[in-house]
Amino acid sequence: MRQPIQAVTPKTEYAEVIGWVHEVRDLGGLAFFVIRDRSGIIQVTIPKKKVTAEVLETVRNISRESVVRVRGQVKAIEKAPGGREIVPEELEIISLAESPLPLDVAEKVPAELDTRLDSRFLDARKPRVRAIFFIRSAVTCAATAFLASRGCINITTPKIVAAATEGGTELFPIAYFEKEAFMNQSPQLYKQMMMAAGFESVFEIGPIFRAEEHNTVRHLNEATSLDVEVSFADHNDVMELLEDLIIHVYETVAKTCSNELAELGIELAVPKKPFPRIPYIEAIEIANRTIEEKIAFGGDLSPAAERAVGDAVGTHYFIVDWPTDTRPYYAMPYPDRPEFCKAFDLMHPRMELASGAQRIHDYNLLVERIRAKGLSPESFEFYLKTFRYGMPPHAGWGLGIERLVMTMLDLGNIREAVLFPRDRHRLTP
Amino acid sequence: MRQPIQAVTPKTEYAEVIGWVHEVRDLGGLAFFVIRDRSGIIQVTIPKKKVTAEVLETVRNISRESVVRVRGQVKAIEKAPGGREIVPEELEIISLAESPLPLDVAEKVPAELDTRLDSRFLDARKPRVRAIFFIRSAVTCAATAFLASRGCINITTPKIVAAATEGGTELFPIAYFEKEAFMNQSPQLYKQMMMAAGFESVFEIGPIFRAEEHNTVRHLNEATSLDVEVSFADHNDVMELLEDLIIHVYETVAKTCSNELAELGIELAVPKKPFPRIPYIEAIEIANRTIEEKIAFGGDLSPAAERAVGDAVGTHYFIVDWPTDTRPYYAMPYPDRPEFCKAFDLMHPRMELASGAQRIHDYNLLVERIRAKGLSPESFEFYLKTFRYGMPPHAGWGLGIERLVMTMLDLGNIREAVLFPRDRHRLTP
Repeated sequence: MRQPIQAVTPKTEYAEVIGWVHEVRDLGGLAFFVIRDRSGIIQVTIPKKKVTAEVLETVRNISRESVVRVRGQVKAIEKAPGGREIVPEELEIISLAESPLPLDVAEKVPAELDTRLDSRFLDARKPRVRAIFFIRSAVTCAATAFLASRGCINITTPKIVAAATEGGTELFPIAYFEKEAFMNQSPQLYKQMMMAAGFESVFEIGPIFRAEEHNTVRHLNEATSLDVEVSFADHNDVMELLEDLIIHVYETVAKTCSNELAELGIELAVPKKPFPRIPYIEAIEIANRTIEEKIAFGGDLSPAAERAVGDAVGTHYFIVDWPTDTRPYYAMPYPDRPEFCKAFDLMHPRMELASGAQRIHDYNLLVERIRAKGLSPESFEFYLKTFRYGMPPHAGWGLGIERLVMTMLDLGNIREAVLFPRDRHRLTP
Repeated sequence: MRQPIQAVTPKTEYAEVIGWVHEVRDLGGLAFFVIRDRSGIIQVTIPKKKVTAEVLETVRNISRESVVRVRGQVKAIEKAPGGREIVPEELEIISLAESPLPLDVAEKVPAELDTRLDSRFLDARKPRVRAIFFIRSAVTCAATAFLASRGCINITTPKIVAAATEGGTELFPIAYFEKEAFMNQSPQLYKQMMMAAGFESVFEIGPIFRAEEHNTVRHLNEATSLDVEVSFADHNDVMELLEDLIIHVYETVAKTCSNELAELGIELAVPKKPFPRIPYIEAIEIANRTIEEKIAFGGDLSPAAERAVGDAVGTHYFIVDWPTDTRPYYAMPYPDRPEFCKAFDLMHPRMELASGAQRIHDYNLLVERIRAKGLSPESFEFYLKTFRYGMPPHAGWGLGIERLVMTMLDLGNIREAVLFPRDRHRLTP
């Protein structure tokens, strides 16, 4: 019976492990392997004169990154990793790796990201890379459990749709039988429709698709969005929920992923409540103090501006009170100053993580706002209809899972937070 | 401060609720509303002579399914639902519903499924329909927690891909910038690649897309698949994991969704371990005893055949030991009788729920099997490559979430388990 390598301790008498050959050293009379599975590494020492002829024959054929089964006595030994080693009685090659490897798993030679992504299956064998994805898994599982505990209903909305969420052109078209359809760029309209359905609070973690042509270190054409929508709530209520979620996720990762964080050299600081709320006007003032290309009122924050404000604030924060014209048609204007709206962005000091708002729930105002954006209400009939038969006030947000992981783990490129990224130039593997 | 309706008890003195007007009755001197939110219903009684002129004016304008806010004294009253009612001091229409409604939420007139799906946001206000989706949410959240507790890593694989999983033609093409791409029909190849990456056990809950033209009560063109893959495991190991998952999910629903089950009139029987394992040959024998169109060796089980075996077995069960030619190229043949393979289907008495197998991990055998299926190994280069550098033995399965919910709740049509189904003819809402 195979044991995870981590379960083999200096006190184990006899062990069978299966894993990848991480290192091979041959010192004449002695050969050493380091075997790796996802739980850890163990040294296998082969005193050539003392092992069977079969074991010796196998040792000769083994290559790095092959999958092998090792069975034998465990010996406590101070110098070996984990303070123990195995002396094999049985050694079997389960899957022989070809040489040379297309990518160096031991990472003695650092590879370009593109090369790494071409051989992602080898790249992800590196404990450092694996740690990123184990943490990403902890993030999505913790978010699911947290939102369920807050009474949010996990919904699934369609990814194949007939119309654009925001009327933009950045959509991938699909041939859907005889019809033209699109890959959905956001569950926005659907989660709002579930407010009309009386679900009251919902969430979804799923793919979103954006046919944006720019190729940057923080954009993907296929990303994972965590979407939340809550009825009888305003922007302040859902900002609090988002704050609580971020803190819960950080706490869970800090608690359950200490090995992975150590592997990445990250000392995770859990952000504290409340995150500062900075009005848009103040944010551009802060940014304009230091950046070269000044942001005019009504302009989006450039990456440099985000960075400048982030440096000044130093923690997660919200930018609130956005000019209504900068936001999508569904953001709720303040009744007493309709040029501003109840929208917010959640910011990590490095970049934007989430966008949200209280939404317009009044049919006539919504139609007016759609027209003001130069869009046609007729294209949104399936959505607008849901505002005519009892739509409650509601608010919500969408959070980019990749950006959450990227900023949490201080990754340089968003592609490092995705197993198989999709961008302008990359469609495989 | 709004309270959920369920939280208002006969002992509550004063309450404010927000909800949908479920029913209106006017008896001259007295008017009654039933207000509904997702937690329950409450009666609002308006003694016309005793309320303010504003309340009276509002009462006159109210329509069914409008969203209203009611604030007033709570009185214990035996005949009312929940044994209490509110006499309003304040009554505000938050969102007035137009009349007539496109769909009767009180369900006095049963509607066709197509009409219901056209106005899904109203259809889903019915407590019966809502119950289905609250249970579906409990299913996906429980599955996530269960698999995480078993050490499975939650992965996200791309939905935009360059090649077909099984070489079939049932794919939706996408215009991906200058390239042709497809919407992925299954995470199969990607989850196997994560075995080559040493992740050891992974799961994903996500959309799959199949451009199948047939329009049946148990097929969708966009569905949700729960996929699992485990290294160092064979078909028997992953059948046990699947069995445990099904039981855990049923137990969780039985424990946490008693209101929803009662709403649906379902007394949930939790299936028991071990589910019977029935070899394919035996299954077609059982089916052929009663069905008209006999199944020949090597044929797939027709819906009638599935039903016949299901009736005979009466519980969840596995069909095992399938003829190798009936399964995809990646299913592992038995070494001693290669015409059969280590594949299985998990069956509910009504229909198939999941498909799985131990997979081939040997590169040469896999190439041979791809060729035997008339496919070209060149199209699978990105996948085959991962078998050449240390691929461990592995096994896994894919489970249809909609079928799991459909069979658990005895729904007649799979579309009842999806908020916004996509089929041959339906692309909206």
